[in-house]
Amino acid sequence: MSFNTFGHLFRVTTWGESHGPALGATVDGCPPGVSVTAEDIQVWLDRRKPGQNKYTTQRREADEVEILSGVFEGQTTGTPIQLMIRNTDQRSKDYGDIARKFRPGHADITYFQKYGIRDYRGGGRSSARETAARVAAGGVARAALAALVPQMKITGYMVQMGDRAIDRARFDMAQVDRNPFWVPDAQAAEDWASYLDELRKSGNSVGAMIECVAEGVPPGLGAPVYGKLDTDLAAGMMSINAVKGVEIGEGMAAAALTGEANADEIAMSQGGPIYSSNHAGGILGGISTGQPVVVRFAVKPTSSILKPRRTIDLDGNETEIVTKGRHDPCVGIRAVPVAEAMMACILLDHLLLHRGQVGEGPRGRIGPA
Amino acid sequence: MSFNTFGHLFRVTTWGESHGPALGATVDGCPPGVSVTAEDIQVWLDRRKPGQNKYTTQRREADEVEILSGVFEGQTTGTPIQLMIRNTDQRSKDYGDIARKFRPGHADITYFQKYGIRDYRGGGRSSARETAARVAAGGVARAALAALVPQMKITGYMVQMGDRAIDRARFDMAQVDRNPFWVPDAQAAEDWASYLDELRKSGNSVGAMIECVAEGVPPGLGAPVYGKLDTDLAAGMMSINAVKGVEIGEGMAAAALTGEANADEIAMSQGGPIYSSNHAGGILGGISTGQPVVVRFAVKPTSSILKPRRTIDLDGNETEIVTKGRHDPCVGIRAVPVAEAMMACILLDHLLLHRGQVGEGPRGRIGPA
Amino acid sequence: MSFNTFGHLFRVTTWGESHGPALGATVDGCPPGVSVTAEDIQVWLDRRKPGQNKYTTQRREADEVEILSGVFEGQTTGTPIQLMIRNTDQRSKDYGDIARKFRPGHADITYFQKYGIRDYRGGGRSSARETAARVAAGGVARAALAALVPQMKITGYMVQMGDRAIDRARFDMAQVDRNPFWVPDAQAAEDWASYLDELRKSGNSVGAMIECVAEGVPPGLGAPVYGKLDTDLAAGMMSINAVKGVEIGEGMAAAALTGEANADEIAMSQGGPIYSSNHAGGILGGISTGQPVVVRFAVKPTSSILKPRRTIDLDGNETEIVTKGRHDPCVGIRAVPVAEAMMACILLDHLLLHRGQVGEGPRGRIGPA
Amino acid sequence: MSFNTFGHLFRVTTWGESHGPALGATVDGCPPGVSVTAEDIQVWLDRRKPGQNKYTTQRREADEVEILSGVFEGQTTGTPIQLMIRNTDQRSKDYGDIARKFRPGHADITYFQKYGIRDYRGGGRSSARETAARVAAGGVARAALAALVPQMKITGYMVQMGDRAIDRARFDMAQVDRNPFWVPDAQAAEDWASYLDELRKSGNSVGAMIECVAEGVPPGLGAPVYGKLDTDLAAGMMSINAVKGVEIGEGMAAAALTGEANADEIAMSQGGPIYSSNHAGGILGGISTGQPVVVRFAVKPTSSILKPRRTIDLDGNETEIVTKGRHDPCVGIRAVPVAEAMMACILLDHLLLHRGQVGEGPRGRIGPA
Repeated sequence: MSFNTFGHLFRVTTWGESHGPALGATVDGCPPGVSVTAEDIQVWLDRRKPGQNKYTTQRREADEVEILSGVFEGQTTGTPIQLMIRNTDQRSKDYGDIARKFRPGHADITYFQKYGIRDYRGGGRSSARETAARVAAGGVARAALAALVPQMKITGYMVQMGDRAIDRARFDMAQVDRNPFWVPDAQAAEDWASYLDELRKSGNSVGAMIECVAEGVPPGLGAPVYGKLDTDLAAGMMSINAVKGVEIGEGMAAAALTGEANADEIAMSQGGPIYSSNHAGGILGGISTGQPVVVRFAVKPTSSILKPRRTIDLDGNETEIVTKGRHDPCVGIRAVPVAEAMMACILLDHLLLHRGQVGEGPRGRIGPA
Repeated sequence: MSFNTFGHLFRVTTWGESHGPALGATVDGCPPGVSVTAEDIQVWLDRRKPGQNKYTTQRREADEVEILSGVFEGQTTGTPIQLMIRNTDQRSKDYGDIARKFRPGHADITYFQKYGIRDYRGGGRSSARETAARVAAGGVARAALAALVPQMKITGYMVQMGDRAIDRARFDMAQVDRNPFWVPDAQAAEDWASYLDELRKSGNSVGAMIECVAEGVPPGLGAPVYGKLDTDLAAGMMSINAVKGVEIGEGMAAAALTGEANADEIAMSQGGPIYSSNHAGGILGGISTGQPVVVRFAVKPTSSILKPRRTIDLDGNETEIVTKGRHDPCVGIRAVPVAEAMMACILLDHLLLHRGQVGEGPRGRIGPA
Repeated sequence: MSFNTFGHLFRVTTWGESHGPALGATVDGCPPGVSVTAEDIQVWLDRRKPGQNKYTTQRREADEVEILSGVFEGQTTGTPIQLMIRNTDQRSKDYGDIARKFRPGHADITYFQKYGIRDYRGGGRSSARETAARVAAGGVARAALAALVPQMKITGYMVQMGDRAIDRARFDMAQVDRNPFWVPDAQAAEDWASYLDELRKSGNSVGAMIECVAEGVPPGLGAPVYGKLDTDLAAGMMSINAVKGVEIGEGMAAAALTGEANADEIAMSQGGPIYSSNHAGGILGGISTGQPVVVRFAVKPTSSILKPRRTIDLDGNETEIVTKGRHDPCVGIRAVPVAEAMMACILLDHLLLHRGQVGEGPRGRIGPA
Repeated sequence: MSFNTFGHLFRVTTWGESHGPALGATVDGCPPGVSVTAEDIQVWLDRRKPGQNKYTTQRREADEVEILSGVFEGQTTGTPIQLMIRNTDQRSKDYGDIARKFRPGHADITYFQKYGIRDYRGGGRSSARETAARVAAGGVARAALAALVPQMKITGYMVQMGDRAIDRARFDMAQVDRNPFWVPDAQAAEDWASYLDELRKSGNSVGAMIECVAEGVPPGLGAPVYGKLDTDLAAGMMSINAVKGVEIGEGMAAAALTGEANADEIAMSQGGPIYSSNHAGGILGGISTGQPVVVRFAVKPTSSILKPRRTIDLDGNETEIVTKGRHDPCVGIRAVPVAEAMMACILLDHLLLHRGQVGEGPRGRIGPA
C-alpha cells in the first residue's frame, strides 16, 4: 500500500503540493446514488479557506473545487470522484530565502533526507495546504452520511490555544461559528483574539487543542483489532500536519483514574442501552457504543516564525533562520474543519465496512425478543 | 482489507480468543535469512507472561510459542511465519457469572451489538490475551531489526500509575528490569507497590501511562501523508486494549507551547544534523529525524473490578455487576512489552518500505559533497 | 501488502511449507453467525486429499483440519478463523537426492535466486501442498455462501488431460464424482485412466485443463475497474501452482469471433433479463450478469518426473536430474477442488464488497416500476 | 480496498469517464529522483490515441496529458503524481439512441444492475477510454524502469485478428511500428487491412490476440503465493476492457504437454543459468527466471456494432438495437499500448517490492563462491 491513501472501502487519495499547479483528492468507493454538487463541497472548503481573517495565513486562495469525475446529473455513480483545486496564489518568491536552510521543527529536513529532493516552495507536499483536499473529500463523505445516517452530526471546535483552555462551564456550541477560532466559549474567543494578536506581532506562534464530536453514531461501527474505530481516528488525526497527540474520551487523563471512577454505568431506555457518563468517548473495544464519539488532538505551534532560530543549510553550515512569508500564527485554527472532514470520512468508511461484513439486518439486540 | 492485520510490507495478522484452544500471529513479509528461533521469541513472551507476580492476573499460562512455518534450519525463508501459543489455563467457569451481564467500560456490550454473538469466555477476542500474539510477532521483528539496524534499541517503561507519575529527575533506565512495573525510578517502584496492593485489596483497578523509546532509528523512515511513522505508531498503540490516548514527543503539551519554545534547533556534527532538544519526539512531517522516537500512551483502568457497578443484562434488565475472576489491577503493566513489540514491528515495516520506495543507496545528504 | 493473502473483505492468508510441522489458513472477515464445524470443512479436504488413488501422489496425509479460533459453539464470531492442518507424512529423505540440483520447470531455482534460501524439502512453500489450506478456507466460504446465497452452486471438473479433451456432447455433471478425474464424461474417464497409467509408468507427467462454474450468482457482483470479478478470478486461478492460463467464458477463442457472433442477445423473463448464450461467461464489464460464471484454466504437467532432464546444481555445474519421490503424474487432478475453493472465497468476498458499497436494498431494476 | 487502484508499492488509481470533463491517473509510490516530463509521457499516449487511422474509433481526442503534482524541476519527488487528460471531443449526442437500450455484450446492463445508475454517455466508466489513464501511468513507470533497470525492454504486438494468426516463421519485431495493427508480420498486416475494412463496412467487429514481452527482467521478481508476478500480470491484463483470457508462456497449450516436453532444461553461462526453451514464459513459481516474460491475452470483438441485435430496454421491453457512434471495429488494436503500460507498472511494482523485502544486496547466487 502506498502512502497517500486512507480508508478501507471509502478510500481517499490526496495529491498535490503547496505550490504546484493544483491539488486534490481521488475519492474511491463512495456509494452510488448520493446527491452531491461542487457547491455542496465548496461550503466546507470556504470554512477552511485561508486569508479570511488576520489569524490565518494571508495567502489568498479561491480554493474552488471542480468535480472531474464520478458524479453524473448531480448523483454519485459509484465510480471514483476526482476533486481538483487549482492553486492560484503561489507566490513562491517569498520562499527564496529559505531555499537552502532548514526550518527547526519543520518537515523540510526529513523530506530532504528521505527523498534527496529539496522542494523549497512552501513545504511542497508537507504543507498544510494538502488538507484542502481532505476537506473536499470530507464534503463527499458528509453527503453520503446525510443520505445513510441523517441523524449524524459532526462538529469540531478549539478547546485550548497555547496555555489558555476554555471553561467547560461556559461551553456553548452555538458560539462555534461566531468567532474566528471556532471556540464554544464567547469569553475565550475574546481573550484569545488579543493573545494571538500579540503573538503574531512578536513573530511567534502557538499550539492548540481541538475537539471533534460525532453525535448520532449507530452502535457497532469499528473493526477490531487493527481497524478499530479509535485506531483509525487516531491515525487519521495524527496524519494531520503538526498534530502530536490524539485522545479518545477521557484520553491521557484515563491513566489517573480508578476502574470504579472510569466505568460508564449502563441503564436501559426504550431506545436501547444508555450510559451514566462517557469516559469511553463513545468507543469500547474499538466499536462505537452509540454515545457521542469524542476525539481530541494537540497541534504544535507553526514552525515557520519570525523569531530567529539556529539551524543548518544544505551544505551543513551552521546558521540562523528567520522565516518570512505568510504563515499562520496558530495552524490549529485551520485544523478544525480538517478534523471534521477526517471524522466524516472515517465514520462513512466504517459504516460501509460494517454493512459489508455484518449486513444491515440482524445484529445483537439487547432486550426482550 | 480486513481488520486483524497491521503493517504494509511486514504484515502481522493476529488470531485467537482468550479461551479458545490457541492464539497466534501470522507474520508475512519478514526478510529472508534472519536468524530466529522459538527460544529467541520466548524471551519476550516470558517478559509479558501473566501470573508472575501479584500485580498481574493470576491466570497461569505457559505461553510457549511454537514456530509452525517460515523458519528453516534457524533462518527465516521469506515465507509466512506462523507463531502459535496454546491456551492451557482457560478456566472459563470463572466467567459463568457474567455470561449474561455487560461489564461497564468493557467491550462485551459493543461486540455483542456488532456481531450478535456473546462469547462470554473472558472477553473472547477483545481480551488483552490477544497481545501475547503481538509480543511473539515483535520477537520476529526484533530479530530482523538486529540484523538490519544493529544499533537500534527499543525500550518501554511506565511513567505514571494512577495519579502518581515518576520523577524525571530520578530517571534511571537500569531500574526498568528490576521491578514489577518496568518503572525507571526506584522510589516510584516502591511507592506504586503499596499503592497497587491497596487498590487490589479493595477490588479496584487503576490506569497507567507508558512511554516507549526507540534509539538508533535512521533518519528517513516514514511515508507521508497517510503512512507517516507517527500515524502508524498512533494507530498501533491505540489498537492495544484499553489505550485511550497516544502522544509523540511533546504530545498533548505541544498545544501550550509557542513556536519559539517548541523549535528543536539544529546544529551540525560529524555524523550529520544534531538537535538541541527533542520536542518532536524524533519525527518531523511523519519522517524520522534520527533522534530517539518517543511515544507515550495512556491505558485506562481494568474494567473488570470487584466494586459493584450498575449495568444491564442481555434481556435489557437493569442490574448490578461484580466481576470476579483473575483480573489485572493495572493492565497498563502488561502493556509495556506489547508497546515494545508494536514499535519493533512498525519500525521494521517502515525500514522495508523505505528500502522499497527509495532504495538503500542515494538519499539526501547534508554537508559538502 | 504482503503476499500470502488474497481477498478484500473476506481475506485468506495461507501459511506453511510442504515439510514443516503444519500448514493452514487464517481466514479474516467472515461474517458472524455462520454455522460451520471442522467436519463441514473436512468434507472438502477429503475430496482433495492425496494418496486416494494411483493417479495422485502416494504421499499419505490425514489432512485433518483443526479450528483454532473464530468459531464458538458452532458459529462464526466475526473474528479470525485459524484453520490448521498438521503435516504427518513428511518423508523428506526422499528429497535428499535433489537437495542441490534444480528441477527444470520447477520453482526451486527462482525461490533460491530470490530468497537465497534452499528449502529442498519437497518444494517448501512452492509445493502444491499449500493448496490444502485454500481448500480449508474454501470450506468456510462455502458455509457462508450457503447462508447468504443458498441457491449458489460451485462445481469444478476436468475438461482436458494432455491432448485429450472431453466431448461436450457427452457432458454429464453427474459423472464428476464417479471417477478419479472429476471428468463429466464417462467415456473420457475410462480413456484417461489407461492414458495416465501409461504416462505414470513411463515416468512422465501431463498437463490438464479445468473448468469451474458457479450457478446462481446474483447480478451485480464485481468491482470495476481493478477489482473486477473476472480480474480477481484470473488472479485467484493463476495463483494456483502450475497454472499457465485463465479464461472467462469464450476465453482465448473470443479473439476469433465477430461482434455479431459474440453478442449474447438479451430477452426478458419474469425473473429479469435472460440471455440467448453465455459467451461472456457470466461477466460483463467485470460485473456478474446473473448467468453462470464460467472460468477455465490450464495446469502445466508436473515438473518432477523420472525422465532425465539436463540441469545445473547450486555450484553451477551442469548435470542431469531424475526426480524420484511421490509425485502426481497429473497435478491438474488435485487442482479441481482448489479451483472450487478459490471461486467460493472470491464470490463471497465480492458479495460482502457489494453489500458494503451498494447495500442490500436499492439497485438498478429493469422493468416497469 | 477500493477498486480503482492496482499495485502494491507503485500504486495507480485511475479515474474518469468517457464523457466527463477529464480523466487521469493518480500515481503513488514512484521512487524519487526519476527524470520525467509531460512530453515523455505524451509519446506513449500518442501511440494509443484514437482517430489516427480508419481502423480505430473516429473520435478525435488530443489526449494531452498535464502533470499536476509530484514532479518538480523535471524530477519525481516521491509524492503522488497526478496525470490529467481533458476530454475534448465528447460528442455525447451520438449516444442518445442507446440511452435506454442495453447493448448485448456490453457492460451497460451490469453497471445499471449494480449501481442503479444509467450513465449512457458512451459507456461512462466502463469505456475503453479509461485506458488512456493507464497509458499515462505506464509512461511514468517506464521512466522509472529506465533509471533502475536500463536493459529492460517491453514490447506489445498483435498476433491474431479474428481467425487470422500471424505466421511465427515471418516474425519480425521491426515491423511492429510500421503498420496500424502493431503486427510483427508484414504480410499479415496487409491481409488484416483488407479483412478489417470489409468487417468495418459491414458494421461488424472482430476479436484479437495480443502478446506482450518484457526482455531484460532480472531474476527474482514476484511475491508468492498471492502476489506472484504471473498472478499480478493475469489480473492486470484481465482488467483491460474486453479481455477474456490471459496466458503466460505456453499458456492454455500447456494442458496438452507432457512434463518431458514442457521442461525448460537448464545450462550454465557466464552470466548465470540459461534455458533451452521458454515454455515457462519467464516465470517459475510466480518469480521471474531472467528469461523474457511473455504474456498473451484475447480481446473480444467490440460489442457496439451496426448489425442489429435483440435486446431489452430499461422498462424491460424486448427490442432491437443498432449501435451508431464512433466505435473501433477491433478494440484489440488499441489494447497493445495498454498492455505495455500495465506490464511496465507491474514490473516496476515488483522491482520495488523485491527491493523492500529482500534488499538490493545479497541473494541466492548460483555457481562457485
